[in-house]
Amino acid sequence: MVILGIDPGTNKIGYGLLENKGRDLALLKYGCIELKSMGSAKDFVGLYDAIEKLIKEWKPGVLAIEKLFFFKNNKTVMQVSEARGVIMLAGTKNGIPIKEFTPLQVKQAVSSYGRAQKREVQKMVRLILNLKEDPKPDDAADALAIAICCSNTMF
Amino acid sequence: MVILGIDPGTNKIGYGLLENKGRDLALLKYGCIELKSMGSAKDFVGLYDAIEKLIKEWKPGVLAIEKLFFFKNNKTVMQVSEARGVIMLAGTKNGIPIKEFTPLQVKQAVSSYGRAQKREVQKMVRLILNLKEDPKPDDAADALAIAICCSNTMF
Repeated sequence: MVILGIDPGTNKIGYGLLENKGRDLALLKYGCIELKSMGSAKDFVGLYDAIEKLIKEWKPGVLAIEKLFFFKNNKTVMQVSEARGVIMLAGTKNGIPIKEFTPLQVKQAVSSYGRAQKREVQKMVRLILNLKEDPKPDDAADALAIAICCSNTMF
Repeated sequence: MVILGIDPGTNKIGYGLLENKGRDLALLKYGCIELKSMGSAKDFVGLYDAIEKLIKEWKPGVLAIEKLFFFKNNKTVMQVSEARGVIMLAGTKNGIPIKEFTPLQVKQAVSSYGRAQKREVQKMVRLILNLKEDPKPDDAADALAIAICCSNTMF
């Protein structure tokens, strides 16, 4: 099954596409959707259309997205939540089930403990997926970690 | 111009439709979109479709929505922000410009001071729109107050 992992952020939305065949994971694609002025309604259309394009091209069986849990400031949490609403809508409108994971679940999936730093997540994603280099930027690495976490729950 | 006012909430989304001809305001419709389990992705589709239906039926020239400003708990702000993202997307996808107003701006628009209680907002909306009864529930009254606030900014 193809898994689309999404790391929602304020102006960069990381995405990662994996295919799992049994426990084998193959990388399909990863990257970032960059938003010019997050929180503006026009950017929501760009975000929605970008997610829909990924869905139509790669036909994922599930969309895995990180739940917000802890955050430092209110403005950030509002912007990221608005983006989450748009992303989950894009999945559901296109018939894709949504699975949500906490940051702790995601970090534990790739590092076996919950306090991994961003660099460790990048390194572990590289090792798990047999990549030659660390996936960059970290938003995309986080999205791949979310997809790995989602794949783990299927067994 | 027809104005669609929206009061985003956790499980009830108030809406109010007004038409302004110069400074005269006419009530077209108001009510609530009720969500079964807000925060679930399926409800976002119901919310999106309900907003789109109002837009197609009433052809508003602007969608006015309340900005989040102060909130008591993090779970609420996340849910309301997710709904705001979906609502603003529905407007923009349908070519409707979005205007955002703070709760203070909305209260000042109907009561000339910023500390009006919910009942006062209902009463002032009734007086401004020449209604026989207070608009209920308060989510719908708030949505009408947002539309009134938006109309005021056009002069």
